Formats: sequence, C-alpha cells, structure tokens
Amino acid sequence: MKIENNIIKDSYPGSEKVYIEGEIHPIRVGMRRINLTDTVHIEDGKRVVIPNQSVYVYDTSGAFTDPDIQVNINSGLPRLREAWTVQRGDVVALDDITSEYGRIRRNDTAIDAIRFPKSYKPYKAQEGKEITQMYYARKGIVTAEMEYVAIRENAMCHLMGITSHITPEFVREEIASGRAIIPANINHPEAEPMIIGRNFRVKVNTNIGNSALSSGISEEVEKAVWSCHWGGDTLMDLSTGEHIHETREWIIRNTPVPVGTVPIYQALEKVNGKVENLTWEIYRDTLIEQCEQGVDYFTIHAGVLREHARLVENRLTGIVSRGGSIMTKWCVVHNEESFLYTHFDEICKILAQYDVAVSLGDGMRPGSIHDANDQSQFLELDVLGELTQKAWQHNVQVIIEGPGHVPMHKIEENMKRQLSSCHEAPFYTLGPITTDIAPGYDHITSAIGAACIASMGTAMICYVTPKEHLGLPNREDVRDGVIAYKIAAHAADLAKGHPGSQLRDNAMSKARYEFRWKDQFNLALDPERALNFYKEGGDYDGNFCTMCGPNFCAMRLSQDIVKCDKKNNDK
Amino acid sequence: MKIENNIIKDSYPGSEKVYIEGEIHPIRVGMRRINLTDTVHIEDGKRVVIPNQSVYVYDTSGAFTDPDIQVNINSGLPRLREAWTVQRGDVVALDDITSEYGRIRRNDTAIDAIRFPKSYKPYKAQEGKEITQMYYARKGIVTAEMEYVAIRENAMCHLMGITSHITPEFVREEIASGRAIIPANINHPEAEPMIIGRNFRVKVNTNIGNSALSSGISEEVEKAVWSCHWGGDTLMDLSTGEHIHETREWIIRNTPVPVGTVPIYQALEKVNGKVENLTWEIYRDTLIEQCEQGVDYFTIHAGVLREHARLVENRLTGIVSRGGSIMTKWCVVHNEESFLYTHFDEICKILAQYDVAVSLGDGMRPGSIHDANDQSQFLELDVLGELTQKAWQHNVQVIIEGPGHVPMHKIEENMKRQLSSCHEAPFYTLGPITTDIAPGYDHITSAIGAACIASMGTAMICYVTPKEHLGLPNREDVRDGVIAYKIAAHAADLAKGHPGSQLRDNAMSKARYEFRWKDQFNLALDPERALNFYKEGGDYDGNFCTMCGPNFCAMRLSQDIVKCDKKNNDK
Repeated sequence: MKIENNIIKDSYPGSEKVYIEGEIHPIRVGMRRINLTDTVHIEDGKRVVIPNQSVYVYDTSGAFTDPDIQVNINSGLPRLREAWTVQRGDVVALDDITSEYGRIRRNDTAIDAIRFPKSYKPYKAQEGKEITQMYYARKGIVTAEMEYVAIRENAMCHLMGITSHITPEFVREEIASGRAIIPANINHPEAEPMIIGRNFRVKVNTNIGNSALSSGISEEVEKAVWSCHWGGDTLMDLSTGEHIHETREWIIRNTPVPVGTVPIYQALEKVNGKVENLTWEIYRDTLIEQCEQGVDYFTIHAGVLREHARLVENRLTGIVSRGGSIMTKWCVVHNEESFLYTHFDEICKILAQYDVAVSLGDGMRPGSIHDANDQSQFLELDVLGELTQKAWQHNVQVIIEGPGHVPMHKIEENMKRQLSSCHEAPFYTLGPITTDIAPGYDHITSAIGAACIASMGTAMICYVTPKEHLGLPNREDVRDGVIAYKIAAHAADLAKGHPGSQLRDNAMSKARYEFRWKDQFNLALDPERALNFYKEGGDYDGNFCTMCGPNFCAMRLSQDIVKCDKKNNDK
Repeated sequence: MKIENNIIKDSYPGSEKVYIEGEIHPIRVGMRRINLTDTVHIEDGKRVVIPNQSVYVYDTSGAFTDPDIQVNINSGLPRLREAWTVQRGDVVALDDITSEYGRIRRNDTAIDAIRFPKSYKPYKAQEGKEITQMYYARKGIVTAEMEYVAIRENAMCHLMGITSHITPEFVREEIASGRAIIPANINHPEAEPMIIGRNFRVKVNTNIGNSALSSGISEEVEKAVWSCHWGGDTLMDLSTGEHIHETREWIIRNTPVPVGTVPIYQALEKVNGKVENLTWEIYRDTLIEQCEQGVDYFTIHAGVLREHARLVENRLTGIVSRGGSIMTKWCVVHNEESFLYTHFDEICKILAQYDVAVSLGDGMRPGSIHDANDQSQFLELDVLGELTQKAWQHNVQVIIEGPGHVPMHKIEENMKRQLSSCHEAPFYTLGPITTDIAPGYDHITSAIGAACIASMGTAMICYVTPKEHLGLPNREDVRDGVIAYKIAAHAADLAKGHPGSQLRDNAMSKARYEFRWKDQFNLALDPERALNFYKEGGDYDGNFCTMCGPNFCAMRLSQDIVKCDKKNNDK
C-alpha cells in the first residue's frame, strides 16, 4: 500500500514556519508566525502606514507545514528526538522486537501489502538504567524535551516582550512533582515534545481509529494528520477493528504529536472479542508490542475493581467506558480482582523502560447527567490516587482521566476531588457533556463543560465530535470537534491568564476594527471556514459586511465618533 | 405577494400537540408530548414489556404544529389573546392608525404587492387606564397571561408528579417586583405568553432581519417560523434594509412568540442613513408605528450619554452596538444629550399604552476580550439602573441587555453588577463570546459564555450564529445558532434545578442504554440531524452503533455485567 502524499502541503494562509533555538540544548522549536498587513489611514490628507506586529502561535502541525522539509507519508516524519535519546547513553537498540505478537505480525507475509514500508529497531532502557522524564527531573536534570516545551509554551511571548513564568527549570520542577508530564516514548522520536499540566497551556486530545464496521488505514492516517493541522495536541488511536497493529504503525510514524492508545482494545481483539478469555499474559505482550512501536501514553483502567461492579445497578446508564466495561465484565465472569490492578507494579516497570506515560482510565465515568458524581465514580477516583503514587515510585509519568456527562453545577466538585484524591497529577477529561438531549451537537454540549473544567485547572480536554453517541466521526467531524475544543481550551487559557494568550485575540479585534479582512481570516482558528462564510455574503472587502450593510456598521460609526469627538474637544 | 405555505407542516417526530387547561381563566396551553416506545426484554425466556412515560416539552412552535389548525402564512396565526385583552374592558380599538409614517405606508399603493394581505385596527389603552402586566400584578390581579406562563413553565412537570414552585401567584409576584416580565403587546395577540426572569426557565432570543445588501421578505418570514420551530422563545427583527415596515408586519402576524425590534434602525432609514438628521419626533412616530403593529419589546439605547463618548478612545474596538454607535454619533455631532435619555419618561408613557416592554440596550457593550468590563460598560449599566426605576414608575416592564465579548473569568462580575445596579430587572445577554479568535464558530465561543452567565441568573440569552462577524445568517445558520443556545439554556436550567428539567435528559439516557434509537432521535433537540448522522453509519438498528461496533459497546457489556453479577451473588 502507498498513501497519496497530498494530505497537506498548503501551509496556513499568511503564515510562516519559524524556529526558535534553545539555549541549553541544540534544539529548534517550530512555531507558526502569522504576518499581518499594515494599518493604513488618512491623516490631514496624507496616507499614514503603521505596520502590525506578527503574531506567534503554538504550532502542532509539525514538519507538514515546513516548506524546507519534503514529508512523505510512506516513509514517515523526520526522527527529531532520536539523537537526543541516544546521546543520553542510557538506552539500547534491540536486535529484535520483544513482543511475541509483534513478531508474528512482522513475519506474516499476507499483510505485507498494508504494512508501513519502513521498520526501525526499538529502543529500550539499558539494564538497571532509568530513563523517564520524571526520573531526570527528580535528579535535577533539565532535558532537551524540557527546554523544548518551555520555549514552545511561550510561543505567544517570543519577540512580543512578554515575560513568562515558564522557564526550563520551572518545567523540570513541575515534572518532578508530578503536576505535569511530557509524554515522549523513546520509540516515537517523530513527536515534538509537549507538556500536560495545569500550569501550562490547556491541551486538546483528539480520538481517531476505526471500528469493526468502518474506515480503512489511509482514512485514519488522513484524520490523524488533519487533526494535528487543526490544532490537536495529542492523538489517541482507538482502533478496534482489523489490522490494529499496522494502522497504529502508519499513524505513529506520521504523527508529530504524542500518540495514546487503550491497549485492552487490542488485547480483546486478540481473543476474538471474548472478554472471559483475556489474560494478563496477552495484555502484557500487548503493552510491550505497543511500547516498542512508540505509543506515548496508555489508558489503563486499573481503578476498576471487582467490588465496584455491584454499584453499576444503581445507575441509569451503567458503564459507558469501553475499557471499564471490559474489565468489570472480566472481574464478574471470573469473580476475581482485575489483573490490571493486581499487576500494576509490573505494568509500571514495563512502561518505565520506554518512558511511556500512564493515563489512569475512568472506567466508572458517568454516561448521563443522572449518574454524575455518584459513588462508583468517586470510589474509583480514590483508587486512581493510590495507583498514581505507585506509578510515581517507578518514576512513571501519570495523568488521570475524568468524565464524561456532568451538569454544570457538579463540575467543580470533580476538579476539587481529583486534585485532592490524585495528589495534583494532571486531570484529563472527556468534555464533560453538560446535557444529554442534543445528540448531533455533542461537540457543543461538551465544549461548554470542557471550557468550565479547564478554566478550573484541568490540563487536557479530550474532544467530542458531533457524531458522539451516533457513529464514527469522519474527517469533517474531526474538524468540528477539534475546533470546538481549541475554542474551549483557549477560552480557559484566557481565564487562567496563560502568558501571552490574549495577544491573538487582541490582534484579531484590532484587525476587525480596522476592516483588515485578510488578517482576520489568517488569525482565525479555522481560516478556511471564516473566509468561505464571508464570501457567501458576496465578497465585499470594504468598510462593512452583509451583516449590517454600510449605514449600520457600528465599527465604522465608532471611528466617526472618535474623530468628531476630538473636533468638539478641540473647539 | 403570496408566500408558499409549506414552511412547516410535518410536526415533530413521535410527538403530539397537547393542551393543558387553566383553572383560573378559560385558557389552553399548548405543549409537545413526546411519546416513547416500550422497554422490552427477555426474562426467563418470557418477553417482558414495560411502557415508558411520555415526556412533556415546552413548545415554542405555536399553531404551526397543531394538526387541527390550518395555518396560512398569508392570513397569519390565530389571534389567541385578543379576547383576553378585550374582556378586561380597558382598551379601545382605534379607527385609524396613529403614526404618520404608518399612514403614509398604508396609503402607498406602490407597495400593495408586498403588503401583508390583512389589516387590523390597533388597540390602545383607554384614556386614563393602565394596562400593563406589571400594573395588573401590582394591583394583585393574576391575568390570563400569568396563569398561562405558570402552566407553560411547568411543561416538564405535568402528569409527571413533580411539584413546582411556579404558581400563577408566584408569577404575579415576580412581575410585580420587576424580577420578571411577560412581553405581550395587546396588538400582537398571535403571540403565546411567555415569561423572562431568573426564577424561570432560561429563554433564547433569536435575531433575524435583512440588511441593505441581502434577503427578502419571504426568506425572513421563513427564518422566523423555523426559529420558533427549533425552539427560539422570542424573536428580534433587526431589519435595516428596504420595506422594514412591511417585513415586520408579515413577521408579527406569523410569529407565535414575542417580537422585539430596535426602533432607531427604522428611524435611521427614514432619514436615509444620516445620523445627524435623526430627531425625537421621527423616533417618537416610529415607536407609535411599531407599538400599533404589535412589537412586544423595544431595544432602546437610552443609557448612551454624551459624556461617555470620550471613553470610546480607550477601547480596542470602540462601540460595536449599532444603536449605541448611532446615538453616540448623534450626541457628538450635535454636542447634545441623547434624545432617548432626555425623553425617556415620554417613551415610557407611549409604551405603557400598548404594554410594550423596554429592553434597555447596552450601547457600550464590549466588542472584544480586550474591552470587557471596562469603565464605559459599567458607567452605562448604572444609567440603565436609573432608567429601570423610571420605567417601573410607569409600570413599564424592563429587561437589561448585556455583553458581548467577555472572557470566562470576567463573566461573574457582569452578573453581580447587573443585579445590584439594575435592581434585579431580568438580564438579557448576547452570548457572551469568550474568545475573539474563532470567526465561523461564534455560536460555540458564545454558547460557552451564555451557559455560564445563564447558570448564574441571566434570564434570556440572545443567540449568535456561525456567521457572526462575517455576514448575514441564512436559515441553516439560524438553526445552528438556535440549537447551540437551546443547549446553553438547558445546561443552565439543569444547573439551576429548574423543575422537571432533567426528565428529558433521563428519558434520553434511558433510551440510549436500552438501544431504543427512535426514542433517542425523537427526544433530541434536533431529531432530523441526529437521525441523519446515525444513518451515515449505515443504519444499524441493533445493540450497537458504528462508533464501537458489536464487541466494544460498553452499554451492552454493562447489561451483561449486571446479569452476571446477580448470578454471582445468587450463588
């Protein structure tokens, strides 16, 4: 299989890819610079031209928008971080892949046709060495990754004269304390480092992945690349259909952001969907298989316990987490404690060897307004807090997943309890959806909840698309979901006062007031849609739009007022 | 002109129009009853059928969805409230219309072709009589309108066994205190009474209207009717183009919800867009013209003062309210105080004769994140508070308009200041938009702010469509705007604990858990879109959808768990 390489080559309009260099490490951090047109007005008959400063924007699109790099989907992105990892001298390149299943797939010539064309030797920590970002941070080491994210977080501040509290040393402290993570598997060197923590820019995760009923590999790769283009900060591959292993390889090799998965999905496919046949050994082999492919964080529903199953009956919508329902079913079928819980130390030891972060799954998240903030949810949250401390003992980085469906007045309790139960590990929520009655619009029902909880301190919000509850999202649904969540995240950044976050709003508003239409489109989260909507009105490019027409444009009248008021005062 | 009568005749799917009768007055309040299918499951080999209770929903669609009424756009809706008004014995039917301009238009045969075919004599208070809902309420009288809204507010509670604090007497008290209004011009008897106040269901206003550059009468009427169908509670006709008078007549005669306008727009058209030529006399005649057509509430920017003009210079985006910029320009051109402010008592006397409510416009609302909560905004709010008390002296009902563009952390201050400055008169906000950087998606940037401020006590939220800042909305934009705001309003109702509001969410979630797909679509805010999205996945109607496929459906697994756990416990 070859995938057409026409996914993205037109860059963002009016923008340039620029790089800012590190001071500690020999690194270059990519950013998008939006160049603006001049402000022009007539004063005393003369044409006065005042340039507008460019706006720097956090850029998740990677090499796809760098005109100097020829990206080929069939050979993958440049392996940016490989040299950093190797130079630290604490990893080893394995001669063969460790996972039994991984080897079976590799040796199966029947799937050669759909396989990613290139292969790499997996890296792993040397015997007796620790290699996680948390380990380095606790040792007082500022890694290249840490400096990278510090520069990146300050995208808005660069050259704009804004000072920021975010320094490489501040990043190190936050990682050391567990308040933030840098998901960066040594086997995913294509990913540009990014940080998730409540003292940083709010991040957006997007979910893609096929199911048994729909979608092929090239479609999923296309969704992945476009998701990054529209601004997704991390990407979860939730594939549950055929060829999970091969789909994931294509996605990881072409994704410039951290990739997460839920390994139990693939483990279940390996036993043909029969929950009762799942075993710790199959799961363990799946973890290693994915660690060596380069997955950056795993959702692990280790907080779902046998004794919590009885609480499901009290709910209106039972368990709505796929991982949660699988593990609960396993527990009740075998009448045994979850193997994810009983083997959690062993899981951490595996993850630590590749620096894979754990995202502790909320198997008991509420699936309806009715079930929000109930006993099963909060009992599980306490277990997640206990597991957080276990993972930290292994220097494994941790984030905590949260709901789900929560009415607005119950959102704050989620944030407060998470902070106290989980020792300030970063919170990562799915929405929450604030009402159940709007299928087809759940990107909006949930953007409301996501903006609220992010403004209270949630570090990353997982998008919901308009297809939620109805079907698998297509590319346009991914777009609607990502943009709705970029809005929620940015609204929260403004509320939290993230350094420089208001500069883009100010630039947009100034362009609006001065009728610099092109600058408005270029500054927009979705330039293409804004431009198309404007064009529907007939493509006027003057001092008004179709909304108000010439006589009713308040902004034009405002400008008259300032002039006239000045004349009055001058009299 | 004849408008095709095919606008809406298919009712909501799975629903019936039902009426609940009054106990004090001989009234019938229309509601939508969503009938659900049965829950069916197999227990010990037997088929067990459990019926699901119907869900009653607040219905804004009027006679359009009553199969027993044949609505004809060319003759208008039934004149529901005319008898109530006449029976009170305090109004008079005028032999001729009072407004000079209104008579000129009527006598102009050149516009016969586009005129609404029917005409009615206008009603007015008898000399010396007071007829506003506020007057009656203060006299201790529970009007038919008050009983109507009490029944209507409890839509969800009827026959569901839920008790509500909202009684006709409670409504009367809220109206008497000024905390709520019933906008109900005696010349718009087609409108079904509704209440705006923070102790009631959060309401959604929609804006339609053409501009000089776009859209004709039939298109505007179509938008109006569809807006009500999708759930708009009130409708503002913001037309600024030609034939404002005739467009409004068509809209009012066919709209079952209160209609608002901004009379200064038409006044400005009368002086060919030349702000400096506006006079109190032209404005006064416009008010009377519109009072006698049946406009239920006027936005009047009487809080914009001459001395505030100097503050505009401190802003990034000046004045973004059309009415605010017109009046400020008038003040600075003439170097005089606003005639809306100086003639406010006279305005109230006119409005009181028809029971038109005043919506005190926020001419200084911020148009950017940068300008939020600034001095001009809050100085004007204090003036609005002063005008509120003046209006109440005339028993004129008042609501207060609010912003605009406000970042999330500054929203609460708006609500608190409005309550204290404006003596608890209902707040009615435009959004607020929580970030400036997403043109094309401002229904979402603002639904976030609207949900937040409504959950804090804002009584009505004015929708924003995806076309905001870019052009005039078309019918699909109206749909996207209304649904986004129905979501925000309902999320706030849940947060505020409006009686019975969660019943629809619960019914939806139960249908979801039981895979009753049709019930899910019928219960949705937009059944058509939900159904179409589902069908895209291939129209499966089984125990899963394309999102997860058969093996990964958490809800199906949940049901297995409950059964299996029961068996374990039975052992």
